[in-house]
Amino acid sequence: MRTITWNTADQCLSYIDQTRLPAEQVTVETQSVARLADGIRRLEARGAPALGVAGGYGVALSCLTHQNKETVTAFRDAVETDAALLRQTRPTAVNLGWGIDRVLRTALQEDTPATAFDAALREAQAIEAEDIALCHQIGAYGGALLPDTCTVLTHCNAGALACVEWGTALGVIRSAVEKGKKVSVISCETRPLNQGSRLTAFELHADGIPVRVIPDSAAAHLMQRGMIDAVVVGADRITPDAVFNKIGTYMHAICAHHHSIPFYVAAPYSTLDMTRKGMDVEIEERGRDELGFCGNRQLMPDDVETINPAFDATPLTLVTAIITDRGIFRYPYDELTHSDTGDAI
Amino acid sequence: MRTITWNTADQCLSYIDQTRLPAEQVTVETQSVARLADGIRRLEARGAPALGVAGGYGVALSCLTHQNKETVTAFRDAVETDAALLRQTRPTAVNLGWGIDRVLRTALQEDTPATAFDAALREAQAIEAEDIALCHQIGAYGGALLPDTCTVLTHCNAGALACVEWGTALGVIRSAVEKGKKVSVISCETRPLNQGSRLTAFELHADGIPVRVIPDSAAAHLMQRGMIDAVVVGADRITPDAVFNKIGTYMHAICAHHHSIPFYVAAPYSTLDMTRKGMDVEIEERGRDELGFCGNRQLMPDDVETINPAFDATPLTLVTAIITDRGIFRYPYDELTHSDTGDAI
Repeated sequence: MRTITWNTADQCLSYIDQTRLPAEQVTVETQSVARLADGIRRLEARGAPALGVAGGYGVALSCLTHQNKETVTAFRDAVETDAALLRQTRPTAVNLGWGIDRVLRTALQEDTPATAFDAALREAQAIEAEDIALCHQIGAYGGALLPDTCTVLTHCNAGALACVEWGTALGVIRSAVEKGKKVSVISCETRPLNQGSRLTAFELHADGIPVRVIPDSAAAHLMQRGMIDAVVVGADRITPDAVFNKIGTYMHAICAHHHSIPFYVAAPYSTLDMTRKGMDVEIEERGRDELGFCGNRQLMPDDVETINPAFDATPLTLVTAIITDRGIFRYPYDELTHSDTGDAI
Repeated sequence: MRTITWNTADQCLSYIDQTRLPAEQVTVETQSVARLADGIRRLEARGAPALGVAGGYGVALSCLTHQNKETVTAFRDAVETDAALLRQTRPTAVNLGWGIDRVLRTALQEDTPATAFDAALREAQAIEAEDIALCHQIGAYGGALLPDTCTVLTHCNAGALACVEWGTALGVIRSAVEKGKKVSVISCETRPLNQGSRLTAFELHADGIPVRVIPDSAAAHLMQRGMIDAVVVGADRITPDAVFNKIGTYMHAICAHHHSIPFYVAAPYSTLDMTRKGMDVEIEERGRDELGFCGNRQLMPDDVETINPAFDATPLTLVTAIITDRGIFRYPYDELTHSDTGDAI
């Protein structure tokens, strides 16, 4: 499965519409920057690494659209306007702006619209290729940590659908399976947006990797019954003292610790943020309707409020190892702050 | 709020239809045993204590229906047939059968249909009154344990809607509020059937007790941030080594222990089952559609299976105290097996 890529035959961007999973698997094919911007805004394309790639291809699409501008200046103005449009779709998504800027910089160095498009497309394709390579590197390091036969618990979607393919946490699982290990996955549904049941179950099932869905609150029960051999999750940010990831990660870490089950975090090395302490990081609070409604069903009285944090902070003391594309880091994680390379394995 | 009671003016049973909460508050009024049986089957009436009362009133309704039978034998046969019908609606619900049998025994001792109905109604009303008294007793013991100002986390619905009124876990909260304590409640939504967001939030909000809903997986995060002072939950069964309650209870107990937060279980003394060990108790496994769909929304690919246990087992080592109508029991819980009275307070 490739979440987002360039369709060379039709000269257009191609990505999976994640809002329609798992009921429908629909691929969006578009040459329109406005269509892509709308798709990012509506979470058709999502996941930090995938958004970086989407932003890059968005700039390439813009270059293609404006090939016939009368002057190079008019061409560059039009592309910069499109880049600004794309950037504002998810203002807090760091990777999106990073991908847009990287490709825009490349395009603006060219002297003609034609060479600008070629350069932009090559740069966006490079971002896509780098993301794939990085996930496979994470997978190679992490896959080696899993037992030959095991059941792994994961939470949310740190998979192909959040990246270009392979994934981070799910990349670890895919790499282990590729090496011949027998891995069965327990996917927590991940309330309130159900990325675990909608996306993780979808992509693992599509790959033929055994996966079962549980309520988030059943993980500890399965650990107690000896049904979980390891936990592997992704990360949105890693500070010198904590892993920030989807709400529920902390609870799983406490319960894994209680049952002496290894708890692994898989993420690109670029996720490390050594400039901040965990307690300084603001936790995004999301709207009440995510808990108040599901489909056409009202789940809460009208006037009742929610507390709906998007992320939580898991102290590194509860994390057995952090698996990155530069190697594996282990408690007490001194290398995180003192060097930029982990243990090679 | 009275979940189920007898309407004396109209000579009928009156109960809240819990399948329609919180979108609609509808009271079912019926003189029909068949209608009640259907309502129990469809979970309009639910909750162990409430089902005992429903079963009792069902027998009274049957006696009323068959007042004009030609012979006492014909009357008794008809009532016994109705009792069997009611009993099979929820075959594993212990309280339902208990309530039916208690009232049926009383009715069958009478010599005429008229006196049988009077006796059956009195007995069913006695069960209702006993349930209310018992919950208030639990509330009095437990309410005293809560600080004067506190935020209490609860899971699922161990409230008025599971009993006749007041509730067990929520009875503890109501009694504390009645004594002038300032209690704010965090209600875990309680996947997959959302009794926390649908029922607990509804009944506390209706009583004017501050309540906010969270995803089940956010409880540990709130504990970490110092936002939870105590956890109070109900119980479906208490063995000498474990508390059986709604899935998720065990995870909350581990996380409360990790953060040194008191974890209380509130339940009728009759919930104690000293004849079995926790590991001997079978955990009911429920269907995949509870996780696969919500309202009209498909949350999982068609061919993916679930693990959906209804309950989990929390070792008593993680339980700070068990609050019953006969007093409070504390670790190491020797009194549970050696006597039938707790500590008076």
